[in-house]
Amino acid sequence: MSLIEDRRDLHRHPELGFTEFRTAARVVERLTSLGYQVRVGREVMDPDQMLGVPPSPQLEAARTRALEEGADPAIVSRMAGGLTGVVGELEGGAPGPVIAVRVDMDALPIAESAGDHHAPVREGFASIHPGVMHACGHDGHTAIGLAVAEAIAGRRFRGRLKLIFQPAEEGGRGARPMVAAGVVDDVDRLLCLHLGLGLELGTVAAGLTGFLASEKLEITLTGRPAHAAAAPQAGRNALLGAATIALAVHALPRFHGCDTRVNVGVLESGTAPNIVPANARLVLEVRAERGDVCDDLRARVEAIVEGTAAAYGLGRQISPLGQTAAFAPDPELVALVAEVAGSSGRFERVLNTHPAGGSEDAGLMIRRVQERGGFGTYIGIGCPTVGPHHSDVFDIDEEALDLGAELVTRLLTRLLPA
Amino acid sequence: MSLIEDRRDLHRHPELGFTEFRTAARVVERLTSLGYQVRVGREVMDPDQMLGVPPSPQLEAARTRALEEGADPAIVSRMAGGLTGVVGELEGGAPGPVIAVRVDMDALPIAESAGDHHAPVREGFASIHPGVMHACGHDGHTAIGLAVAEAIAGRRFRGRLKLIFQPAEEGGRGARPMVAAGVVDDVDRLLCLHLGLGLELGTVAAGLTGFLASEKLEITLTGRPAHAAAAPQAGRNALLGAATIALAVHALPRFHGCDTRVNVGVLESGTAPNIVPANARLVLEVRAERGDVCDDLRARVEAIVEGTAAAYGLGRQISPLGQTAAFAPDPELVALVAEVAGSSGRFERVLNTHPAGGSEDAGLMIRRVQERGGFGTYIGIGCPTVGPHHSDVFDIDEEALDLGAELVTRLLTRLLPA
Amino acid sequence: MSLIEDRRDLHRHPELGFTEFRTAARVVERLTSLGYQVRVGREVMDPDQMLGVPPSPQLEAARTRALEEGADPAIVSRMAGGLTGVVGELEGGAPGPVIAVRVDMDALPIAESAGDHHAPVREGFASIHPGVMHACGHDGHTAIGLAVAEAIAGRRFRGRLKLIFQPAEEGGRGARPMVAAGVVDDVDRLLCLHLGLGLELGTVAAGLTGFLASEKLEITLTGRPAHAAAAPQAGRNALLGAATIALAVHALPRFHGCDTRVNVGVLESGTAPNIVPANARLVLEVRAERGDVCDDLRARVEAIVEGTAAAYGLGRQISPLGQTAAFAPDPELVALVAEVAGSSGRFERVLNTHPAGGSEDAGLMIRRVQERGGFGTYIGIGCPTVGPHHSDVFDIDEEALDLGAELVTRLLTRLLPA
Amino acid sequence: MSLIEDRRDLHRHPELGFTEFRTAARVVERLTSLGYQVRVGREVMDPDQMLGVPPSPQLEAARTRALEEGADPAIVSRMAGGLTGVVGELEGGAPGPVIAVRVDMDALPIAESAGDHHAPVREGFASIHPGVMHACGHDGHTAIGLAVAEAIAGRRFRGRLKLIFQPAEEGGRGARPMVAAGVVDDVDRLLCLHLGLGLELGTVAAGLTGFLASEKLEITLTGRPAHAAAAPQAGRNALLGAATIALAVHALPRFHGCDTRVNVGVLESGTAPNIVPANARLVLEVRAERGDVCDDLRARVEAIVEGTAAAYGLGRQISPLGQTAAFAPDPELVALVAEVAGSSGRFERVLNTHPAGGSEDAGLMIRRVQERGGFGTYIGIGCPTVGPHHSDVFDIDEEALDLGAELVTRLLTRLLPA
Repeated sequence: MSLIEDRRDLHRHPELGFTEFRTAARVVERLTSLGYQVRVGREVMDPDQMLGVPPSPQLEAARTRALEEGADPAIVSRMAGGLTGVVGELEGGAPGPVIAVRVDMDALPIAESAGDHHAPVREGFASIHPGVMHACGHDGHTAIGLAVAEAIAGRRFRGRLKLIFQPAEEGGRGARPMVAAGVVDDVDRLLCLHLGLGLELGTVAAGLTGFLASEKLEITLTGRPAHAAAAPQAGRNALLGAATIALAVHALPRFHGCDTRVNVGVLESGTAPNIVPANARLVLEVRAERGDVCDDLRARVEAIVEGTAAAYGLGRQISPLGQTAAFAPDPELVALVAEVAGSSGRFERVLNTHPAGGSEDAGLMIRRVQERGGFGTYIGIGCPTVGPHHSDVFDIDEEALDLGAELVTRLLTRLLPA
Repeated sequence: MSLIEDRRDLHRHPELGFTEFRTAARVVERLTSLGYQVRVGREVMDPDQMLGVPPSPQLEAARTRALEEGADPAIVSRMAGGLTGVVGELEGGAPGPVIAVRVDMDALPIAESAGDHHAPVREGFASIHPGVMHACGHDGHTAIGLAVAEAIAGRRFRGRLKLIFQPAEEGGRGARPMVAAGVVDDVDRLLCLHLGLGLELGTVAAGLTGFLASEKLEITLTGRPAHAAAAPQAGRNALLGAATIALAVHALPRFHGCDTRVNVGVLESGTAPNIVPANARLVLEVRAERGDVCDDLRARVEAIVEGTAAAYGLGRQISPLGQTAAFAPDPELVALVAEVAGSSGRFERVLNTHPAGGSEDAGLMIRRVQERGGFGTYIGIGCPTVGPHHSDVFDIDEEALDLGAELVTRLLTRLLPA
Repeated sequence: MSLIEDRRDLHRHPELGFTEFRTAARVVERLTSLGYQVRVGREVMDPDQMLGVPPSPQLEAARTRALEEGADPAIVSRMAGGLTGVVGELEGGAPGPVIAVRVDMDALPIAESAGDHHAPVREGFASIHPGVMHACGHDGHTAIGLAVAEAIAGRRFRGRLKLIFQPAEEGGRGARPMVAAGVVDDVDRLLCLHLGLGLELGTVAAGLTGFLASEKLEITLTGRPAHAAAAPQAGRNALLGAATIALAVHALPRFHGCDTRVNVGVLESGTAPNIVPANARLVLEVRAERGDVCDDLRARVEAIVEGTAAAYGLGRQISPLGQTAAFAPDPELVALVAEVAGSSGRFERVLNTHPAGGSEDAGLMIRRVQERGGFGTYIGIGCPTVGPHHSDVFDIDEEALDLGAELVTRLLTRLLPA
Repeated sequence: MSLIEDRRDLHRHPELGFTEFRTAARVVERLTSLGYQVRVGREVMDPDQMLGVPPSPQLEAARTRALEEGADPAIVSRMAGGLTGVVGELEGGAPGPVIAVRVDMDALPIAESAGDHHAPVREGFASIHPGVMHACGHDGHTAIGLAVAEAIAGRRFRGRLKLIFQPAEEGGRGARPMVAAGVVDDVDRLLCLHLGLGLELGTVAAGLTGFLASEKLEITLTGRPAHAAAAPQAGRNALLGAATIALAVHALPRFHGCDTRVNVGVLESGTAPNIVPANARLVLEVRAERGDVCDDLRARVEAIVEGTAAAYGLGRQISPLGQTAAFAPDPELVALVAEVAGSSGRFERVLNTHPAGGSEDAGLMIRRVQERGGFGTYIGIGCPTVGPHHSDVFDIDEEALDLGAELVTRLLTRLLPA
């Protein structure tokens, strides 16, 4: 299948984070057929480090659907519990550096536009999974990963190539269990990439910057119900505790010299007007330009939750839902990317760095590589889009796919010399 | 059908407030067959004054079920939109006072116990409607109403008898639209009744007291969503507005000399950790021993909602969900009830008054009768119960049914002399 | 000096709680001259149990003023630190019961009206202490206590008489250290009294009821200051902690079946607009009809303070400022008071009980007497007043003084038989 | 007097904002003696635009002290009400541009260190005004302004020179009434300067940047007092309103792409534990890198105050206490300053721009000049300091004074050509 065919097949079968059973099974089949050593599931993910795993019935429904759509049952059986990460490795002919490419595979809980103006509708590759859509270009990323796998498969080189297909990037959930499983511990150079981000066709940014560290948390509070008229004093009011936490989290201070964000995105509490609410659930996030500040904010949120729970006589539980790291691309690797892109003759405009903003859990992988002495970068591939990222009319310009695949292939050729 | 058979038939087919299609249709049929002039639906309810009407699909499902269970389609068609109130009238042979009896017909959203110890299970008349149950004795009230209708039907009397079968007492929703339709505007004496309430078999309380006025409100707040990291300043945060309202409502002052209650029972807001929450919903109630204090509390809640919405730049809507009135039975009528009960030879213990507590929307009817110069009372009929009111094992002692029906019949005989 | 002269002398020289140096010295002199055994200061007060003692400079200024106004230095020296309580005892000729009378001596921080319409101004006995005034009738109570001392001094009786002159009733501060010192541990019958309270001249209430238990607390929070623009993250914000506590205290639940009150009366925090506030002070009170509910409310306040301090990273201290107990007069003693008052020929109207409301720290003494098997009551002496209690134009009808003194004297004659 | 003598005289007689009676009178005398046309008081300040004026007794005490210390009564009489601004003008021999220099004159409410290590103590020019101190170098600024006045006085030039001596820079209060009076409306080039700010001796920054726009506000809330036990429902609680405002202000959102600050620095409410607090006072500030964002924050604060006041039934007043503008120096003028500084041979290091941070109300003047087509800059003169700005041991290196005066004189020579 061609790069565009691959992308359209993936676009038509979008899968949410940790349910990429069909997608990952396709990747396993393809990499295996190309001669890669392929590891999957528990071999490349630490289940204890997975955050925000969908409940079992949802996992099961997605698994069943994947099988119905042709996924190999033997492969899917290795992904039980949402372990949908895949790593394919190719050993070169002689010792040398370990070079990795990381792409992400998951879609979003968005109902794709059914309008005639929407190219996937016109061309017949719109999502057939109601309420799920590739609205961030990960279909393109995975397709590029497969194209690169094919391009390198036949070549001679020294060192080792590692292709990482990560699940559940949305929400910052999938990188963490792969890092914990040691997937990038031996990597010397790590290339990550994203299409779009406002960059025009023919433009490349060798190192995206400005990603914020982030923590997403779920808080549950447990009080005691009581009849609000007959015995209000017998209740322990989880709703008031949750309201107090929401206000206190939003009142966390700004940090001089480090941009931060806080948001309580969900508060749900109570059942009936005449019952003292005994349960509450909050979902919130904190972000910061610096990892230590993000940790500080998280610690402050924990103190708020624990103190407020004590103030209102409530039990409380704090569960991580997602995590991303702030990171900076390594200048040496950025320079190499810029040089290779510039000399390729295919990019009209080469930026060293470009501020991307937002959060991205590839940062956890880059940070681990850097901690162990390696280099990493996050490359932006110019790609006009219809609609903004995460909108229901989002679509990419497929011309960018080949540009991305070629750039990564050229980089691997340089980093894994013959 | 006997009184007990009626009660068991109703117990087996419980219907929630404003969906009493089968129950009300039975009442219409029976009253009509006894020679009563029967009005139903829009004739006895002002649709604009209905609070907490179930959404259309729920109404429709209940209507369909009622038809399947034998309700007369012609009658049910007059109750479209949940207009399930019924009034039957009998004109006496000569002019005289207008005397009314009011009973309620609705059940509760409680799944009835399936245990063998539960008499309705053993005797085969447990609810066949999953999740719905007569757990407050309204099945008995309606059965008593029908028995009284039958007892009076053949008698000679002066004046006019009015039997009011009210829907949706739970939540304080059904009396209001009947009062608004003028149902009790011409009533000189109004008798209301309740089984149980801790009174033993053979005890009667001629006037229950201590009912709290109450208002149940639903608040919706509308802000503006925004990406919590990319543009937090573009959001208008409905969650923080709702949290602020919850704290302010609970901080409403106590009232010297008048017991009060406040409770925010539900707060729901937001969709995702990284979105500024654009919507929030609160469900709350206020109660007071005095109606003017309840009105004051409601006005303060409205000020809190409007002020806080302005503070946070939010749209807001305040919708009534239910309402009950505080009321005091008229001593003259209480004395009459006590005298008739005492001289009947069937009650061992006659209390003038008894503190009931809680809230009851019959108060709206009694208040209207009193405002127009009439008298009203709320009679407690002693009746041992299994389990407390509103529990899934609730059951009444059926011996009390006949006692109740006889007492009301004797009272009508006195109030509507031959 | 006559009863009225005494009262006017005290009215002219009002002294705040724990600074009644001149008042108490006068009491000591008078009781001593009448043959009473007099104990004062540390003999009748436990300094560790004093709440809300004025700071040293204020104590010292009051002490100096008392000496300038003729207080005996030897007596005043025994009251160092605000130990201004006095107990005079008279042993009867034979063994018998221990009967006590308790009156209070302190004034209020109110500037007395200087208007001509104000009798103390016209008659020349208005306060000469700026900003301090007897605006609650304690001048009359002390004068009655002295008149009773004189009336009993020459009589023969069995048992023992104990006259308790208590400081610092306002704020609920003076009874506690006297109870802790054991002053009422041996008392069989305790008589307390108050003038006014809405009762007319010639009316007496043998047992005042409805006093609420109360606790007054001072909360201090200690955070960390920081420049609000240059380093907001370095601060620990005591102001936000205090605001959160205020809202949470006011949101404490009502108690079914027990009237309660909560009030945060003072919040002071911060120094400048551009400094993160590092300190905050709250003064609050809780009250309840029942002592156990008052204790429960206090415990909930403590949990709120501790939890919120933890949430905001603050140090906190909770200090009691005052305390009163709920209490009920003993029916036997009430009956005796009513009988004696009725048979005296001086009271037109004798009430057994009368609801007073508010709080009164004599309750701590009555409770202790009751705990040890004795009886106590709090008598209301009818007395028209100009202006309400605690207003700057407050004045009593001096005719009531003699009525009060005579009633107490008659009661003592009955309780301490010859 | 020499530059250093002037500075030391001013340092010894520090005066708070809007009470610079002695300082301003000295400036008027000196400028007049040098031939400047001098305007003062109402001629150069709009009284309606003064913020945070000290109360009358404080103004009066400062005025009296200034007269005692030798200020000319005729001059001081023109400054009644705190109108202590001065503008001296010198007309050149021929038409040309209008060039202005602005310095500030006020001191801070800080008690100067009395330690021997503190140079002003050792050298005998420490503050003789208890609790007031030149701890930010404005004494040096004023002295430089006078030195420049003297240096230019004898020269020939085309155009017009305007020397602006501004009061009350601290708190952002003095520039506003001068701008409102039109003082800079005709200015083509405006030079402002500050000593210190971390720049070393011999360094000059031609254009300081990073000043935040700020607004300081005082909020007063007016409720209704009530006895917290006897009639809590009669109160309108200003303390709870203030607490709610404090939390809401701190919960104002961060702004993407624009650093902001919020701080409620003072909250004072209530009088006694048993009174519902009827009054509250808040002092707060908002800051932002951009003026429009600062305006937006201020508008949000106003909405919070008005909405919350409505929610709690309170009256409210919002009064500005201070205001500063964000601003950017004009590159052309910065370039000129850099060139002149560089070619002077007296500065070892010339920076084009330097991030200063904080807030500075000269920005209001620079913004007005820019709005009318002129250029402005804010020059940083390197000057080692003992202790940080606003500390009680703050002292400047007096060598910097001559450097500053010479730089400004050279600039004026360039901008006002002969």
